Amino acid sequence: MRIGELSRLSDVPVATIKYYLREGLLAPGVHTYPNQAVYNDDHIIRLRLIRALIDVGGLSISTASELLAVLDAADLTAWESVGKVHYALARRTAPDRDAVLDEAAGHTVDEMLARRGWQIRPDSPARRTLIHLCATLRQLGHDDIVAALDDYADAIASMVAVDMSLIKSQASIAATIEKAIVGTILGDGLLSALRQLAQEHASRPLLQNNRPKR
Amino acid sequence: MRIGELSRLSDVPVATIKYYLREGLLAPGVHTYPNQAVYNDDHIIRLRLIRALIDVGGLSISTASELLAVLDAADLTAWESVGKVHYALARRTAPDRDAVLDEAAGHTVDEMLARRGWQIRPDSPARRTLIHLCATLRQLGHDDIVAALDDYADAIASMVAVDMSLIKSQASIAATIEKAIVGTILGDGLLSALRQLAQEHASRPLLQNNRPKR
Repeated sequence: MRIGELSRLSDVPVATIKYYLREGLLAPGVHTYPNQAVYNDDHIIRLRLIRALIDVGGLSISTASELLAVLDAADLTAWESVGKVHYALARRTAPDRDAVLDEAAGHTVDEMLARRGWQIRPDSPARRTLIHLCATLRQLGHDDIVAALDDYADAIASMVAVDMSLIKSQASIAATIEKAIVGTILGDGLLSALRQLAQEHASRPLLQNNRPKR
Repeated sequence: MRIGELSRLSDVPVATIKYYLREGLLAPGVHTYPNQAVYNDDHIIRLRLIRALIDVGGLSISTASELLAVLDAADLTAWESVGKVHYALARRTAPDRDAVLDEAAGHTVDEMLARRGWQIRPDSPARRTLIHLCATLRQLGHDDIVAALDDYADAIASMVAVDMSLIKSQASIAATIEKAIVGTILGDGLLSALRQLAQEHASRPLLQNNRPKR
């Protein structure tokens, strides 16, 4: 199909498709004439993934581009690929590598990791994010949230068991990587929505008792 | 203290403090002379909360302002307040109220809610977000993530038990609301970081087996 039909079928404007082509998020079509290219169903599927990461997942073009490059690099082992996905995603929110992190919060996080036996690379951006959040929570006087870190980690462990069963059952490295990307980006939104629904339900009996008596 | 000292102690520029005062995020100081106001420790504490919501939590000024207004409205019951916090937060990512949602995804979500007995207001933005995410995941071919919704809800339920034990133990309505705001905004980041750390650890043995043999 030509770019006009690709635009119609994917519901993405032609100008945006051309931008994704220039930035390398979308593979070029097959050139039939000097100024004409032909696209196929793979392009529609990729456009859906790009739009989901950007519109629904809230990623920047550059982060989406970095993740899709990992997905396209078929020469990586799955281990390296999933690691790269995590690290690309986590850099969105992590403090800079050379930022000075709060020492007490660093101990709290590293002790939690040691207690659970979680083996994490020392330069993990998720570890830096967690240290920064714990320091901020303590500064705001919410030490009780930091103190509940192990309880939260217990709940997270059963959630990650579900994640891993989905990731493990993929047939190819490319499918594994796409599951890791989509599961992390859209999955975080899904878990946040589920948490709010569960909180709304759980707040009912508690808070109705607090209503002023008539 | 004067605004200059407030700026120095809170590490927030004077111009930014004046902006928060104009927008109503920060209460005015006590006027001593027509053009001079005096601030106290409460202003430092509030500035820390504002900066955490915006810088660490990634909220817009207007969402932060909406949440702080809920916190400041001492005439609400806790039940109404926590509901307002959730709904203000969830609107960040939820599809518009009049958006047409995917019918099949709507059934999937409502059946999950019914199975768990979760009582949710019909206009819940978190419910709309969840429906939209499930429809997007199916469109991308990730039906297996949607099929794992109940497994994820199980893990979320034990996480929300921790949330509720923290929220319930607050002494005042204002403290309950602040715990709900901070726990949701910074808590989502904390859980996302924990999930990535647990995934990194869980991926190790699985993925090292996939390394090409030498």
